[in-house]
Amino acid sequence: MRAVVYRGAYDVEVVEVPDPSIEHPADAIVRITTTNICGSDLHMYEGRTSVEEGKILGHENMGIVEEVGDAVFWVKPGDRVSVPFNIACGVCRNCNLGWTSFCLKVNPQEGMDGAAYGYANMGPYAGGQAEYLRVPFADFNLLELPPGDEHENDFTMLSDIFPTGYHGTELADVRPGHTVAVFGAGPVGLMAAHSAFIRGAARVFVVDKERDRLQLAESIGAEPVDIAKGDPVEQIVDANKGKVDRGVEAVGYQAHDPTGEEHPEMVLDNLVAVVETTGAIGVVGVYVPEDPGAANELAKTGRVAWNYGQFFANGQRMGTGQCPVKRYNRELRDLIVAGKARPSFIVSHELSLDEAPTGYENFDKRLDGWTKVLLHP
Amino acid sequence: MRAVVYRGAYDVEVVEVPDPSIEHPADAIVRITTTNICGSDLHMYEGRTSVEEGKILGHENMGIVEEVGDAVFWVKPGDRVSVPFNIACGVCRNCNLGWTSFCLKVNPQEGMDGAAYGYANMGPYAGGQAEYLRVPFADFNLLELPPGDEHENDFTMLSDIFPTGYHGTELADVRPGHTVAVFGAGPVGLMAAHSAFIRGAARVFVVDKERDRLQLAESIGAEPVDIAKGDPVEQIVDANKGKVDRGVEAVGYQAHDPTGEEHPEMVLDNLVAVVETTGAIGVVGVYVPEDPGAANELAKTGRVAWNYGQFFANGQRMGTGQCPVKRYNRELRDLIVAGKARPSFIVSHELSLDEAPTGYENFDKRLDGWTKVLLHP
Amino acid sequence: MRAVVYRGAYDVEVVEVPDPSIEHPADAIVRITTTNICGSDLHMYEGRTSVEEGKILGHENMGIVEEVGDAVFWVKPGDRVSVPFNIACGVCRNCNLGWTSFCLKVNPQEGMDGAAYGYANMGPYAGGQAEYLRVPFADFNLLELPPGDEHENDFTMLSDIFPTGYHGTELADVRPGHTVAVFGAGPVGLMAAHSAFIRGAARVFVVDKERDRLQLAESIGAEPVDIAKGDPVEQIVDANKGKVDRGVEAVGYQAHDPTGEEHPEMVLDNLVAVVETTGAIGVVGVYVPEDPGAANELAKTGRVAWNYGQFFANGQRMGTGQCPVKRYNRELRDLIVAGKARPSFIVSHELSLDEAPTGYENFDKRLDGWTKVLLHP
Amino acid sequence: MRAVVYRGAYDVEVVEVPDPSIEHPADAIVRITTTNICGSDLHMYEGRTSVEEGKILGHENMGIVEEVGDAVFWVKPGDRVSVPFNIACGVCRNCNLGWTSFCLKVNPQEGMDGAAYGYANMGPYAGGQAEYLRVPFADFNLLELPPGDEHENDFTMLSDIFPTGYHGTELADVRPGHTVAVFGAGPVGLMAAHSAFIRGAARVFVVDKERDRLQLAESIGAEPVDIAKGDPVEQIVDANKGKVDRGVEAVGYQAHDPTGEEHPEMVLDNLVAVVETTGAIGVVGVYVPEDPGAANELAKTGRVAWNYGQFFANGQRMGTGQCPVKRYNRELRDLIVAGKARPSFIVSHELSLDEAPTGYENFDKRLDGWTKVLLHP
Repeated sequence: MRAVVYRGAYDVEVVEVPDPSIEHPADAIVRITTTNICGSDLHMYEGRTSVEEGKILGHENMGIVEEVGDAVFWVKPGDRVSVPFNIACGVCRNCNLGWTSFCLKVNPQEGMDGAAYGYANMGPYAGGQAEYLRVPFADFNLLELPPGDEHENDFTMLSDIFPTGYHGTELADVRPGHTVAVFGAGPVGLMAAHSAFIRGAARVFVVDKERDRLQLAESIGAEPVDIAKGDPVEQIVDANKGKVDRGVEAVGYQAHDPTGEEHPEMVLDNLVAVVETTGAIGVVGVYVPEDPGAANELAKTGRVAWNYGQFFANGQRMGTGQCPVKRYNRELRDLIVAGKARPSFIVSHELSLDEAPTGYENFDKRLDGWTKVLLHP
Repeated sequence: MRAVVYRGAYDVEVVEVPDPSIEHPADAIVRITTTNICGSDLHMYEGRTSVEEGKILGHENMGIVEEVGDAVFWVKPGDRVSVPFNIACGVCRNCNLGWTSFCLKVNPQEGMDGAAYGYANMGPYAGGQAEYLRVPFADFNLLELPPGDEHENDFTMLSDIFPTGYHGTELADVRPGHTVAVFGAGPVGLMAAHSAFIRGAARVFVVDKERDRLQLAESIGAEPVDIAKGDPVEQIVDANKGKVDRGVEAVGYQAHDPTGEEHPEMVLDNLVAVVETTGAIGVVGVYVPEDPGAANELAKTGRVAWNYGQFFANGQRMGTGQCPVKRYNRELRDLIVAGKARPSFIVSHELSLDEAPTGYENFDKRLDGWTKVLLHP
Repeated sequence: MRAVVYRGAYDVEVVEVPDPSIEHPADAIVRITTTNICGSDLHMYEGRTSVEEGKILGHENMGIVEEVGDAVFWVKPGDRVSVPFNIACGVCRNCNLGWTSFCLKVNPQEGMDGAAYGYANMGPYAGGQAEYLRVPFADFNLLELPPGDEHENDFTMLSDIFPTGYHGTELADVRPGHTVAVFGAGPVGLMAAHSAFIRGAARVFVVDKERDRLQLAESIGAEPVDIAKGDPVEQIVDANKGKVDRGVEAVGYQAHDPTGEEHPEMVLDNLVAVVETTGAIGVVGVYVPEDPGAANELAKTGRVAWNYGQFFANGQRMGTGQCPVKRYNRELRDLIVAGKARPSFIVSHELSLDEAPTGYENFDKRLDGWTKVLLHP
Repeated sequence: MRAVVYRGAYDVEVVEVPDPSIEHPADAIVRITTTNICGSDLHMYEGRTSVEEGKILGHENMGIVEEVGDAVFWVKPGDRVSVPFNIACGVCRNCNLGWTSFCLKVNPQEGMDGAAYGYANMGPYAGGQAEYLRVPFADFNLLELPPGDEHENDFTMLSDIFPTGYHGTELADVRPGHTVAVFGAGPVGLMAAHSAFIRGAARVFVVDKERDRLQLAESIGAEPVDIAKGDPVEQIVDANKGKVDRGVEAVGYQAHDPTGEEHPEMVLDNLVAVVETTGAIGVVGVYVPEDPGAANELAKTGRVAWNYGQFFANGQRMGTGQCPVKRYNRELRDLIVAGKARPSFIVSHELSLDEAPTGYENFDKRLDGWTKVLLHP
């Protein structure tokens, strides 16, 4: 089959590779109909990870079940399914508690909980930017979708970023009537804004510096805050006549100020300043324990010198980490079917698998209007 | 001042009474701008309670603060406020826990927790269908509103039925993506349906037999279920392709079947049947410990012979009781201001105080289109 | 192998039956070391169920893994395990939400969620009062125990009644500092009292009429309430100087008054009366949708005419249903290992498998001191 | 009356001052029977705050109501009461939500939520290390105690450190069966360990370097971890055969390594390392937004360069801030009365008011055995 593989920094290629096959009785093989390029794929693309050459990329996958192992009793060939980016065993303590993003069994690397398709350090699993994908523990991991091809571009958001944005609002404990500040208007930030409204938020502010992204935020009723126009905390407090109830971090450690300089503590500091005392903050933007390419010594070891004293003085709380997709994808699917959610509003480009290298290049350059790229193998 | 007083069964009158005054340093006097007739006022109107002759009715009140006592430090004359129907002391254990509807201090009647304005058995407090109202523990009880007269017909729902409908969805633990069945399309049921959508419900079914009310449900995106057309459980299961996640009871013990016969167990039985195993049911329709006018011996002593064995076998859960308005009214106000909630969609008539008797009579007869009556003194 | 089989009312026999074998790749075979007779086994023993003749009884099982299927990757032969009485698939929505007691896949009977070993209407699964037991979805269902034979009589409570008693306190939302009334001092009620203290209850009242059981309650610091001595509600309110915060129902529909008459509504009425307004009630005593042998017409169809009007007026809430053992058994195991829980305090008799008929007979007669019977095959 | 006043660094004095009086109708005057020296009083004592000269110190107070204002309707002269260290209005949004530690009304300083008796930056309120204390909003703030003098040394912990330790376990979401690491065996850490057991923890590890404190931890069943003996994370992981479920920070920004050097990030780093992925951490040790006396530039502005990247990678969550005493003190009182809690185990010294200077001096020097000092005026 054909698949997108990693060759080196700024180099992905579409090549012929062997088809995947059933390796364990609980496996399934899924024929991919849509697979997205994720912002976190760019970490690998830019060469800032230890991903091995030849790895098939792609963790945002959906498609049709092609074949199942002997122990699979629920899903069956022909089923249309969404594949959560987390690979989870379904039987360990973390899976029992709904934390499939921290499954204790699937990552053979010592001390690492959780695994994913086609991703650095997340286990030896091939990605889905390909014609076929092997899915372990298929009954547990796969989400059934209505047959046919309706809502394809909405459903494809269920494998990662829609639940991830939603997770940000869950970690931030967003409730009806709340005011919310979302930092970052990339795909995850936009999904967090969409999710905040689904949960009944009264007002949502979205902070970024990219015009096209801020316009997308505005298109769903959020209030755009352009950091080029001044301190985002002041802008929000002015517009909201006070601080907000909740905050979501959807930027991560590679936060840049308007001049383009990297400041890993910047977004956390802004959240501490803009959220009310006793308020909650959900962090789904990625921070890493080690980053050899970081701007300073602290950041290289994952240390971030943010305004922790003020955080404590404010009595705030914070939840973090990778999203356990299964916890949310069923209800988000039902909202799509009912017409109450439409995450496809961020899709800017649909390409064939062979056009993947162009997709990576333009998305990585953040060319104007390249918000979200789907590949249809 | 002029006020609506109870004279006897089917007899209310607008008469001159003495103005209220500050009786305790924590009191305030509110000049009423809008006060609604509530479905539960009709229990008194129909003579099925022990309310004393001469009582000023009205517990759904809003207006402008006219005067405050010496201990009042927050609200001040000129403030526009909503008055929750519950009177609460703010310092007892139940108030501390947010259960202002079961305040331990304000009802002098032995063994009764909770009080209200102008209501049978809810303490010696005059109602607000009048020009002025005395509000105890004013700082604790009053909710500030934006000055002016904008959103008057939305804000007037904050004193009771909007929070009460919302409470039904809270007791039923409605979450994003859920399917919900609301029994009863009276004002509270319609507010529950509105609230379910605010909380992110995917689909909401509203069950009733009145055409005009079902049309209002439909106008906000809910799916009307007419019990005249057949078993509501079957209709919902058919439309939803299965049972629903959550249920709300907004009818109460005076439930009637399509032939008009009273069946206090009917709605509970339907909820047990239509809600999924492990699902939750919120009950805000009123059931009473004693009802001398009830249809049978059991019901006279508040006993309801519903399908409890099936409820247990289904592993369902249920919350009940009067709404603690303060727990919700701030956030619901903010949703109105932000344009995310518009509870005034149920208002059918706006009358002067002097027209109250007509309002009572027509609302009690459930004349077509008399959904919700506001009085503007 | 030898096994306890049902022959008819008041007739169980120990006979030779074929050994169980792996039927699906996710199965395991467990060699039983301890299996208990449960109070709910007596429903079958007394002939009040439709259980088929020849069924192997026993759903409270523990032992050593003997053999596993090809898809089993976690447990392995030689592991010491506790077997939750619920059989659950691990992949359906209810299992995902932690409701293994209402698994959507394992019970082939139309409209029935949930399954169990050796039980009427709970699927075609043989029980564990035998030398060996087949366990479906073994990785998901089995709980690992420390190797050896320490704590055997404590760990054997993990398959059902310790989690079930705990579930009662969870449904009742028991928190540190609460006062709690537990109705029923049978094994489940005693486990509920033990659990209430583990959760930090200040005072626990246990209501029953059997002396030996009340003494066991007293032995763990609970306050016994003997219904033969007067109204239990009055006794508790007197001792506690007021109502209690929480209540647990551990009796079920076969509640008897002191004269021995059956009153299915009696315990619910007492709970409504003894629990504070806004308080919560957890119901783990069994109520059934149909009971041909019931005392009256209502009860035959699962209807219970309890004091629902007062329940609503009190703003109380209630959770019900079979316990999802997996939700609690890991933490309860850890409390046993740490010496913080000792559920074996209720064990009165340890018999060989061949002595099972005697165990059934004496336990069913509630002979003095026959509180809990263990069988060691 | 006589009172302990602040004179300057390392200088407190007992002097005659005017008696307090009713200033607002909701005030009460309390005659102090016991008032404790708190570890946080030492921040002022050491001159590391901006507290004004002449301030009466003391925020851990209890006593007998002497006089009440006109608006007080609940407490009355002669009542024995505990005085939470937080002063709260009872009517603002934070008070409504149970966050009395962040009351929006009582602190006149711009941008500061929350107030306390006798404390730097916490409003103009005199402390209770004196014969009498003025208590604002007395009905809301005071907790009733049983009359008499029983449990005096237990009840005196209800004003601050017992609830504060408990708050640490609440922020850390400690549940039955959990393993917990508490960093810091000062009074608050010991109360957190006591609280963890009350909530059903299976095992509690307490980390410190002071022998006498570790012995106190051991006396309640916790497992002492002496940082002088090696890396506390390794010691805990070895003893627990793995990481712990939950962590509590009871040290604060002035953490010292075994050599005595100050490392504000040390305890947070250890918590991130010792708590399981997805685990929760409660922070009640104090961190400050500004600390002119701090060890380095970052710390002077409240910045702490802890291992945030690992925190995110672990998917952990964290709650922080001053304890809202009212949320817990009622239930903790009931546990003391029921004999289930005995926080007085930490009391080492009981002095008269005039001996306060000696108490401050010895407690500040952490003289061996000076764990907790009570003053009885």
